[in-house]
Amino acid sequence: MKQYTVLTLFPEMVLQAFSHSILCRAQKQGYIAINAVNIRDFSKNKQKHVDDYPYGGGPGMVMQAQPIYDAYQSIPCEKRGRMIYLSPQGKRFTQDIAKQLSQEENIVFLCGHYEGVDERVLEELNAEELSLGDFVLTGGEIAAIAIIDAVARLVPGVLAKEASFEEESFWEGLLEYPQYTRPPVFMGRSVPEVLLSGHHGNIAKWRRQQSVLRTKQKRPDLLQ
Amino acid sequence: MKQYTVLTLFPEMVLQAFSHSILCRAQKQGYIAINAVNIRDFSKNKQKHVDDYPYGGGPGMVMQAQPIYDAYQSIPCEKRGRMIYLSPQGKRFTQDIAKQLSQEENIVFLCGHYEGVDERVLEELNAEELSLGDFVLTGGEIAAIAIIDAVARLVPGVLAKEASFEEESFWEGLLEYPQYTRPPVFMGRSVPEVLLSGHHGNIAKWRRQQSVLRTKQKRPDLLQ
Repeated sequence: MKQYTVLTLFPEMVLQAFSHSILCRAQKQGYIAINAVNIRDFSKNKQKHVDDYPYGGGPGMVMQAQPIYDAYQSIPCEKRGRMIYLSPQGKRFTQDIAKQLSQEENIVFLCGHYEGVDERVLEELNAEELSLGDFVLTGGEIAAIAIIDAVARLVPGVLAKEASFEEESFWEGLLEYPQYTRPPVFMGRSVPEVLLSGHHGNIAKWRRQQSVLRTKQKRPDLLQ
Repeated sequence: MKQYTVLTLFPEMVLQAFSHSILCRAQKQGYIAINAVNIRDFSKNKQKHVDDYPYGGGPGMVMQAQPIYDAYQSIPCEKRGRMIYLSPQGKRFTQDIAKQLSQEENIVFLCGHYEGVDERVLEELNAEELSLGDFVLTGGEIAAIAIIDAVARLVPGVLAKEASFEEESFWEGLLEYPQYTRPPVFMGRSVPEVLLSGHHGNIAKWRRQQSVLRTKQKRPDLLQ
């Protein structure tokens, strides 16, 4: 069973995100386990603060090293593993990284808030930084949720049919062809004739053409 | 008040994601409203199915046009606006797009599942496609949540201090400098001397150097 542990100030947010759909079932069936550790539980002050002013000044607050370090230490040894800090500074997360991470038995995610976290705890815990993209979120939780989702669905057994993710976007470096389902006419728009022909060769050819066309139009960078 | 409406099969998942932290407060204070419409409520068959086999064959199921179209029509006119379909085929979401979207009064997000949605409903509703990045998620919900989060925090009033997001990552095209807070020594690691000096000029210079250094190391593409 793959173990994903999230160090966060909002443990319910993380757990609720996985209480629906495919990944809820995958947890029940024992393919994956998603745990959340509340960093605030490891604050050593009365007010349960976990942040303080940045040395050198500047806006916002910085998350302190100690509660994060102690939250990490609370994870049972056998569930510790690669430590990923979600940060817009990190390496950009891609499907290739998702594939790599889906091989890991245990992953720990650290979700920052405020202006960031004390650099020293990242060094001490040897955190790898991953970014969801060039945009700023209110915290690392949503990024951790996205990465766990993308990784966990590649764990064997999680998706009902292996085939389902084989044919998907980016697996072959092209965008997906357009999809149609019943009825044959919707709001005056018909399904392309070829898809109703039953001719597998022509269908495959048309889909391939559409994939190339779309990739050219929308993501020419993928063709290079 | 900005209106964000999400068409989804998992409305609770979307609403729960915003029942914590900053964006929960922003809703209470009336800066933003986040609504979720359950596409399944608009299924016209007894089993409440919203998907069917793809024309032309292939793995997985395709979401049908009609329930999505009707879910959209159920949104009160004054809350309709730009329609965004979350898809790995879309234009990649960035902080610049977040800034643009934060100007919109209303945005509707469509979250797909299974192998995708019937192409004709995307045409009929004039959906713009946005992608979180080159990776595959189990559905569009997490992408919609990420985009709403990144957009809503730029809405005036949502963040306590305007300054807070001005200085953040990507705002000036460089990665952020490392941050430190109390105590001055953690696990034998000291805060860089200059940050304790109180000399604003030197601190600004050091931070700038660190930002450039980090950008060179981690994201040389940003310097071009």
